[in-house]
Amino acid sequence: MKLTSEILETAIEELSKLPGTGKKSAQRIALHLVKKNLSDVQRLSDAMIALKTKIKHCSRCFTLTDTEICPICKSEKRNNGQLCIVEEPQDVLMIERTHTFKGRYHVLGGSISPMDNIGPDQLRIKELIQRVNTKDEHISEVILALNPDSEGEATSFYLNKLLSPFELNITRIAYGVPMGTHLEYIDEATISRALANRSHF
Amino acid sequence: MKLTSEILETAIEELSKLPGTGKKSAQRIALHLVKKNLSDVQRLSDAMIALKTKIKHCSRCFTLTDTEICPICKSEKRNNGQLCIVEEPQDVLMIERTHTFKGRYHVLGGSISPMDNIGPDQLRIKELIQRVNTKDEHISEVILALNPDSEGEATSFYLNKLLSPFELNITRIAYGVPMGTHLEYIDEATISRALANRSHF
Repeated sequence: MKLTSEILETAIEELSKLPGTGKKSAQRIALHLVKKNLSDVQRLSDAMIALKTKIKHCSRCFTLTDTEICPICKSEKRNNGQLCIVEEPQDVLMIERTHTFKGRYHVLGGSISPMDNIGPDQLRIKELIQRVNTKDEHISEVILALNPDSEGEATSFYLNKLLSPFELNITRIAYGVPMGTHLEYIDEATISRALANRSHF
Repeated sequence: MKLTSEILETAIEELSKLPGTGKKSAQRIALHLVKKNLSDVQRLSDAMIALKTKIKHCSRCFTLTDTEICPICKSEKRNNGQLCIVEEPQDVLMIERTHTFKGRYHVLGGSISPMDNIGPDQLRIKELIQRVNTKDEHISEVILALNPDSEGEATSFYLNKLLSPFELNITRIAYGVPMGTHLEYIDEATISRALANRSHF
């Protein structure tokens, strides 16, 4: 499509590469930016560049941060013996939003997936064992919070076996019917799981 | 919400100011950018800055462009005597996507809205009259393509009256039931309009 300006076209093209942004949303964003002050656009642009130049993985838990050790790992308040294992940094952000978990995290960097050639060695499992082993953090409970797909299940199963020699409580988050919905709209696999995982009232 | 990095937080904050982008989409975009190459992010960032520094209004039709006169106004092929009046530059983009209109445009910059203190003088109506009047463009038909809300209706009505002294065909785009839908899902106002605007088969 040839638009009225190549610069506009390039911007829409680049914006439409963002996740969840089709051609139409990209066009809406581009025309919105044209109307904003240069300083606003500059601030957004700088923030995006900073993501690439300043953000790295925490050297202990591997979540995204701009310091060597992330604020969660640094905080003594978060050293309560609970370690929550997640696949990706976004999972940390989602759990943090709940304001209910007061322990620390360990980001695996994915899940075991033979189809994608991802085995335990491609994940940060060696580093997990080391954290559990050195006892510096006094970890007493490992909470598996992996995604409820076959790769997440396989990884949970593998970690449970691998961690069983240590003196640890190994738990996993509940998988079942999500809040604020009706059973009518839930798939069979979720309902089966919710039934199997039923608990006393 | 305090995240694991202030830089990440700032980027999510800035991204969530974009239209149609909530906190969650902004987070997804930010984490996506962290994974991309710096050159990709730089290209996006440059494209956004160029929008602010290089894009202006075509001095004839007032659509967005990076040249004094936009490619549509410049093209002799588009000088077919038809002039399509729209409210905003995005309307030009939408009509261009159809590849069916071969005339030129005139972007009013909004619609008459007494509630927002926008009268005819705040729109590019003087410039429209001049284009019609000078006869350089040999305009023979003015197609009103304003939005189907009360402001758009009022503006169409006003323009129809204003342009009637000129020797012009004044038409307006059809308002009715959109394609690919069922009457069942259409509001009463649209159906009333579709009935009133019925045509021979």
